[in-house]
Amino acid sequence: MKAIWLDQQPRLRSDLPAPSPAANAALVRVRLAGVCSTDLALMDGYYPFTGVLGHEFVGEISAAPAAPERVGERVVGSINISCGHCRECLACRPSHCLNRAVLGIKRQDGAFAESLCLPLKNLHRVPDQVPDTAAVFTEPLAAALEIPEVTTIKPSDRVLLVGAGRLGQLIARVLALTGADLDVVARHAHQRQRLQGIGSRCIAEDEVAEGEYDLVIEASGAPSGFALARRALRPRGTLCLKSTYRGEVPVALSSLVVDEIRIIGSRCGPFPAALRLLEQQRVDPTPLIDCVEPLANGVLALQRAAEPTVLKALIDCR
Amino acid sequence: MKAIWLDQQPRLRSDLPAPSPAANAALVRVRLAGVCSTDLALMDGYYPFTGVLGHEFVGEISAAPAAPERVGERVVGSINISCGHCRECLACRPSHCLNRAVLGIKRQDGAFAESLCLPLKNLHRVPDQVPDTAAVFTEPLAAALEIPEVTTIKPSDRVLLVGAGRLGQLIARVLALTGADLDVVARHAHQRQRLQGIGSRCIAEDEVAEGEYDLVIEASGAPSGFALARRALRPRGTLCLKSTYRGEVPVALSSLVVDEIRIIGSRCGPFPAALRLLEQQRVDPTPLIDCVEPLANGVLALQRAAEPTVLKALIDCR
Repeated sequence: MKAIWLDQQPRLRSDLPAPSPAANAALVRVRLAGVCSTDLALMDGYYPFTGVLGHEFVGEISAAPAAPERVGERVVGSINISCGHCRECLACRPSHCLNRAVLGIKRQDGAFAESLCLPLKNLHRVPDQVPDTAAVFTEPLAAALEIPEVTTIKPSDRVLLVGAGRLGQLIARVLALTGADLDVVARHAHQRQRLQGIGSRCIAEDEVAEGEYDLVIEASGAPSGFALARRALRPRGTLCLKSTYRGEVPVALSSLVVDEIRIIGSRCGPFPAALRLLEQQRVDPTPLIDCVEPLANGVLALQRAAEPTVLKALIDCR
Repeated sequence: MKAIWLDQQPRLRSDLPAPSPAANAALVRVRLAGVCSTDLALMDGYYPFTGVLGHEFVGEISAAPAAPERVGERVVGSINISCGHCRECLACRPSHCLNRAVLGIKRQDGAFAESLCLPLKNLHRVPDQVPDTAAVFTEPLAAALEIPEVTTIKPSDRVLLVGAGRLGQLIARVLALTGADLDVVARHAHQRQRLQGIGSRCIAEDEVAEGEYDLVIEASGAPSGFALARRALRPRGTLCLKSTYRGEVPVALSSLVVDEIRIIGSRCGPFPAALRLLEQQRVDPTPLIDCVEPLANGVLALQRAAEPTVLKALIDCR
C-alpha cells in the first residue's frame, strides 16, 4: 500500500504491505487524515520515530476478526494503544500505559496511509451527520475538550488563550462554549480571521493585562508564550499547558509559590464528547482547512502545513 | 524597645521606639517568636528588607484603640496586611493584596521585638489549653494545612514529602492526619528521629519509587529536590510546591504535558484550623524546638537556626 514514511525525512512509499489486525483490533481504510504540529515536530526530531506518520483520521473498518458486524462502520480512533495490564492501565489511565504504542508517533504505523490498524476499543463510530471533513478533527478537538475536563471554567472567568494555531483554533472554540470572557493572542491575520464570530476577542501580545486572568491556556509551544501566559495570570490562577516545548524552560518556581499558581499539563481528551459536539454542530472546525492533498502528494501536504499561514492541511487517502 | 534589626546583617537594637497601632490595629506584646527559613533567606538577600525580622509569634494584645475589650487577649497573627480596596482584596484574596505589607518580610516591622503592630482582623485568639511553645507554630502549621486546602488527599493515596526541615516536619504531621500512605525523604538523622511515631515512613533519596506517587510535596527548596519530586510522580499526579527557590529552575515543560502533571504553588494557610488542631493536640510541634534564646541573644538564635542539625530556634521576647 501507499503511505508517508518517516525516516529522518518523510517520503512516499508504495511498497508497504497492508497492516494485519491483531485479534482484538481492526483494519481501517483511511478516508481523510489531518496534519498536526506533532507530525512536524517528529520530522524535526522531537521524538525518534521511524514509520508511517499521522494520527488524526477518519476511516472505515474494513476487517475486524473479533467484530465482523463492525465492518463498514465509519470511525475515528483514539491514538494510545494500551497493554491493559500495567500499573497505569490497572489504575484506569490507559492513555498513560507504560507500554503504550501511539498511532503514528511511537511504535505504531500511522494514518497517512491507505490503511491502519487500531484496537477495536479505540475506534469510535462517527454519527452520520458529521462529514469526513469535520470528523477528521475529532482527535485534536478531544484534546481541546480536555481543558474543561481538568479545570473548572466559569462564565464569570476571564480567560486568555496564548496561540491561535491549528490546536489553538479548536481550543478557542471549546473555551467559547463555556461562556467565559475570552481573549486570544493571535499573531497572524489569517488566525484572527478564522476566529471571527466564535465569541472571543483577538488581542496583541502587548494588550495582555498582566495579573488579571483567572485561567490562561498556553498553546503556542514557545518559551516566550509560556512567559506571557505566566505574567497574565492573577494570583491563585490556573495555567493550562496544551503544547510541547523543546528542551527545558527556565521557570521562576518561587513566584509560583508566592502567587499560589496552579499549572496543569494536558494532552489527550474525550472522543465521545468531541463527536457529540461535532454532531450538534456546536463546534465547526472546517473553516480551518487550507488544503487537501491526495496521499500521493502527502509530503507536499506536510510542507504546506509547515507554512506560517496554513492552519490545517488534510490528506485524502482514498 | 529591643528588637532584632536586619540591614544586610541582623543586629540587636535597643533604641527603637515602640510601634504605635493604627486605628484598626493592635499593639501586641510578643511572648515567644520562631525563626523560619524565610528569615534566613532574607538575611541572605532573597528579598530586600530592612527592619525588624520575624513573623512567627505568640503574644498578648497590650493596646487596641478600636477594641479595648481585646486588651490582654493572647493571640497569634496572620502576616499579610492587606489594603482592603485593591483588585485582589475585592476578590477575597487578601493574602495576595497588591499593596500588602508582610510582617517582618515586607514594609512592616516583625516579631523579633518586644512589641509589634498588626490589624485586629489579623489577630486570632489562642485557646487557653495551647501553651506558648505550641502556639508559636501556628503560622507555619497553617501553611502546612494549606496543602489539603488546595488538593484532595485520599487515604488510598501514596504521598511523598521531599524535605523534613522545619516546615517539612509540620507538613509530615498534617499529611499523616489524612490517613494517606506517607513516605518522607529525610536526609538527616535528627530529622528522621523527630518523625518517629507520627505515621510516616522515612526513606532515602535513592529509595524513592519513580513514577509511583499520587501526590508529592516539595519542601526542600533545592532544585535537586524539585527534580526528585517530579520523577516520583505518577502520570496525572500532583506536585505541591511549599518552598521557595533561588532564581529560575529549568523545567521540562513538555513532560508535564505528556504526563498530564498538575503543579500547585502554595504559601499561607488557615489560622483557625491550625489553632483547632493544636487545641485538640492532634499536631504536637513542640518536639521540633531545639533552643530558646532571650531576645537579647536573638542574633544567636538566628545563627543556631542556620545550623544543619537545628530545626526550631525560638526567641523569648518577654
